[in-house]
Amino acid sequence: MPILQPIVNLAELLFQKGITDVVVSPGSRSAPLTLAVARHGRLRVRVMADERAAGFVALGMAQQSGRTVAVICTSGSAVYNLAPAVVEAFFQEVPLLLLTADRPHEWLHQRDGQTIDQPGLYGTHVKRSYDLPADNTHADARWAIDRSVNEAVNLSQLLPKGPVHINVPLREPFYPASDEPFRYERPRIVEVLPASAQLAAETWHQLQDDWERADRKLIAVGQLPRDPALLTILRQISDEWGVPVVGEIISNLPRNDSFITRTDTFLAGMSPEQAEAFRPDLLLTFGGSFLTRSLKTFFRQYPPRQHWHVQPGVDRVVDPFQALTRLIPGEPTPFLQKLFADLDYQHFLQGDDEEDSRTFLHHWQTADRQAARLVHQTVSDTDSPLTDWSATQQVLDHLPTSSVLHLANSMPVRYANLCGIEERQQIAVAANRGVSGIDGCLSTAMGAALATDQLVTLLIGDVAFFYDRNAFWSAPVPPNLRIVLLNNDSGHIFRMIDGPGRQPELETYFETPHGYTARNTADDAGLMYMVCSTKAELASRLPDFFQPGDRAKLLEVTTDKLANQSEFANYKQRLASLLAE
Amino acid sequence: MPILQPIVNLAELLFQKGITDVVVSPGSRSAPLTLAVARHGRLRVRVMADERAAGFVALGMAQQSGRTVAVICTSGSAVYNLAPAVVEAFFQEVPLLLLTADRPHEWLHQRDGQTIDQPGLYGTHVKRSYDLPADNTHADARWAIDRSVNEAVNLSQLLPKGPVHINVPLREPFYPASDEPFRYERPRIVEVLPASAQLAAETWHQLQDDWERADRKLIAVGQLPRDPALLTILRQISDEWGVPVVGEIISNLPRNDSFITRTDTFLAGMSPEQAEAFRPDLLLTFGGSFLTRSLKTFFRQYPPRQHWHVQPGVDRVVDPFQALTRLIPGEPTPFLQKLFADLDYQHFLQGDDEEDSRTFLHHWQTADRQAARLVHQTVSDTDSPLTDWSATQQVLDHLPTSSVLHLANSMPVRYANLCGIEERQQIAVAANRGVSGIDGCLSTAMGAALATDQLVTLLIGDVAFFYDRNAFWSAPVPPNLRIVLLNNDSGHIFRMIDGPGRQPELETYFETPHGYTARNTADDAGLMYMVCSTKAELASRLPDFFQPGDRAKLLEVTTDKLANQSEFANYKQRLASLLAE
Repeated sequence: MPILQPIVNLAELLFQKGITDVVVSPGSRSAPLTLAVARHGRLRVRVMADERAAGFVALGMAQQSGRTVAVICTSGSAVYNLAPAVVEAFFQEVPLLLLTADRPHEWLHQRDGQTIDQPGLYGTHVKRSYDLPADNTHADARWAIDRSVNEAVNLSQLLPKGPVHINVPLREPFYPASDEPFRYERPRIVEVLPASAQLAAETWHQLQDDWERADRKLIAVGQLPRDPALLTILRQISDEWGVPVVGEIISNLPRNDSFITRTDTFLAGMSPEQAEAFRPDLLLTFGGSFLTRSLKTFFRQYPPRQHWHVQPGVDRVVDPFQALTRLIPGEPTPFLQKLFADLDYQHFLQGDDEEDSRTFLHHWQTADRQAARLVHQTVSDTDSPLTDWSATQQVLDHLPTSSVLHLANSMPVRYANLCGIEERQQIAVAANRGVSGIDGCLSTAMGAALATDQLVTLLIGDVAFFYDRNAFWSAPVPPNLRIVLLNNDSGHIFRMIDGPGRQPELETYFETPHGYTARNTADDAGLMYMVCSTKAELASRLPDFFQPGDRAKLLEVTTDKLANQSEFANYKQRLASLLAE
Repeated sequence: MPILQPIVNLAELLFQKGITDVVVSPGSRSAPLTLAVARHGRLRVRVMADERAAGFVALGMAQQSGRTVAVICTSGSAVYNLAPAVVEAFFQEVPLLLLTADRPHEWLHQRDGQTIDQPGLYGTHVKRSYDLPADNTHADARWAIDRSVNEAVNLSQLLPKGPVHINVPLREPFYPASDEPFRYERPRIVEVLPASAQLAAETWHQLQDDWERADRKLIAVGQLPRDPALLTILRQISDEWGVPVVGEIISNLPRNDSFITRTDTFLAGMSPEQAEAFRPDLLLTFGGSFLTRSLKTFFRQYPPRQHWHVQPGVDRVVDPFQALTRLIPGEPTPFLQKLFADLDYQHFLQGDDEEDSRTFLHHWQTADRQAARLVHQTVSDTDSPLTDWSATQQVLDHLPTSSVLHLANSMPVRYANLCGIEERQQIAVAANRGVSGIDGCLSTAMGAALATDQLVTLLIGDVAFFYDRNAFWSAPVPPNLRIVLLNNDSGHIFRMIDGPGRQPELETYFETPHGYTARNTADDAGLMYMVCSTKAELASRLPDFFQPGDRAKLLEVTTDKLANQSEFANYKQRLASLLAE
């Protein structure tokens, strides 16, 4: 099919640009793209019938690998079905390349099937949007295609990473005849040399001076993939300088003697007098979203005098604590390493033990330890019923070391954050905290399982699970996926948060109980299915559940929403007493 | 909650503007909207957890009733999950009012949860997009809200109808205290008086003259809801003037002695010599999409000298046959009634028997009858295996009179069009032929069943069925819904159309067999489930299936894709022989 040669070449160009994985949803208009990647031979192609799930599977793969994953869909509403994953990828900064087949634009508004206004359809939720020429016989058109695809893949990887949209109008005929040669021409590659932001020497000295002058310094880490080098330098800074390092479960900051991870418990409901002891002069942050309202509200209510944020791209003033004063272009790990290296020698010369800093650290660490005891009291009572929270604690305690943990929105990620993960477990944690929707958590975890040989465990509630069950349909489920489904038969979060819990409309309009168990879904999908409803049962299931096997496994944990609610109320009450002390 | 009083009032305003139905998906940011409609007391509120299904349910209700249906969702990716239904509503011209809750815009790009760039998110796929003020204490802000909502509901109903988007940023706190009074203030209503387009007398006379002067006239009807008055006048024109009236199953033109409905069979593959006898001088059309490629290709290859199209809105040149010469503002039924009334008296005076017209009609009617015999031969052999096509014929033959038939994309609507429906059956046919996606066919039919007491039968293939099975989840399925699932375990259309059927990638990348049956889905959803795989079994199930009952029923028809393929190949072969005669 010589007329579509540029589309055939596109597969080779993706491969040359480092793309290894493609997720395809079936369609006829998209057939030239599908055939180009299917016949390439060196691209891993995964087929998913539901585009919404396909988009999130691609997101999960890219989140896991850091590499751009291509997504191919046909024209029409298929393009919109990808949108929930696209917007999550955009705000979570995950690299996707969306190749959406289209009819030539002259057919728009002509009552032809699957013809919608696709160019720029994702609006501001992609880094850039391209619209390839439908007619590519002219050399300039082919130049535009090659150049645009080079740029698009580059752009998906430039920091902050993110989704890029290439709309591909295709004119019939687009199926090759059976005797037609199908070959890939060597494309021209436009590479971008890697570079990093460097501060001028005087800027750096100024920054060092400002750091030194600040009395109480605190480092808070937003959502970040697990990075051992970052953990090492953060630990050094905490241990040697006495600077509290604070993070949540999605920061991939594990529990150890240095890091402070229980802010959701101990920052909630502090009096202004109590808060004053915790308030930093200088707050240094990096990474993406923070999870809990407790932490965000604390820094908004008690803003630091200075808030520095380190990140590669500084074109936006992202100011979640309403206190930002300085954006520092760069990656956090080299920044911290340089800061530590340059300052530590001075500290050594000065013999500065920073008494005030130590007191400040002590406040944070003591509160963290108290919070640990409180949580332990809440979930460790073996006589109390199995709840979402206590089940989460049991599951996290039993996670195989060096495995991957996916946390679904909305309650599972919060419970898991309350429980935390120990450093020795070496767990990498992921969660869709770009937009924080429940819509693609299952597909995302499945995508991660496809992109790694490690065990991937997903902790998910029933609403998110059933919402996204098409993840399982139409393609085999990878055997290294483990799903713990916390089924309380409702959108449980609405009972737990303050507002809707008090409304008479709670059940009907917010929780929406459905009565589903996952047994049939597991059966349809060929998953190994287990169920439990007590702490003892759960404990007895977990060792088997985490064993490797040739099939994915689903463990349904049945809990009672009223038991969940009363446990949470007890916790809140204990917390209030603790704060009143 | 006085600060949100304008949002409370909004529910009363919707009601006063004629909206009776609201579909709500749970969320916290959207709670003020949800509570406002839930407490109103005179709005029917349906709760659906999956926004994608919710959007299509609303579409089905609005399609059935012709009234605007409101949809409420929370902020973030929820808004994108509605988009597939929005774009279908836009191109199908179905009135929806999309009320999307949002965070106040100052939180965009501040790494807050469920915060995306919502204003204008549906792009050109809504008739208009509003963004309400987040702060409504100023009187002008309240004026803007009332005025915008009035305009939005008006606009959704102005022809062509369609979806309108109102983005609703809401600032906390938004849950009322339990002792807070909750009352609706009487809103100001801006009504729009109905009016219709009138042609000037001299324009009308010119049009009459042009009509009279044209030798071979033909009327072709695109997608339209069933309209008995339209059918009456079309039959008069066909019978008394000898003008062929052509339509497809989605035109709601039933089979009788007058109408020509088998164009998909007899217009396919005609030689230019044969086609010449069928080519009109003047083609008059109205309605929406045409379904089949046969019909569209025929008029593109053999364009009429003049193509007139009657429709209320004339701001777009919609020219699917590449032959349009005249847009006539107005509704088809009054237009045809006036044309008939004005011209028929002249015909009477002139005693004009229009010999040439009668010959032209005869060509179309003869071809239609031949096609009927051909289709009958194909599907009526009781010894051949049950296929999607023959099952469709059996189901259509047994439809209860005066019921509603929903036809899913992609093959079911085509098979049903080949089979057709008899006039005495009085069936109203609906299908999502705006964008023609498979994504929401099940939810749409469920929406229709919620909006009527008639029996609603959906004919659907397995890919569309499982894609949209969340229609069933989280809300009871109306007992007047009947689903006939044609399960051939694949995206069967790819085997039937010419291109992908020849590719070695057919199964893996296009058909995507999944091995699912609907038994578990039916069990989870509490549907009455039946299954059959032979013609005799199907015949024995159908009477029970169509009986009224207190539960929705699902009849799974298991067919073999190779049998489907060979039946279709036989049909094509018979057709080729017929054309070669």
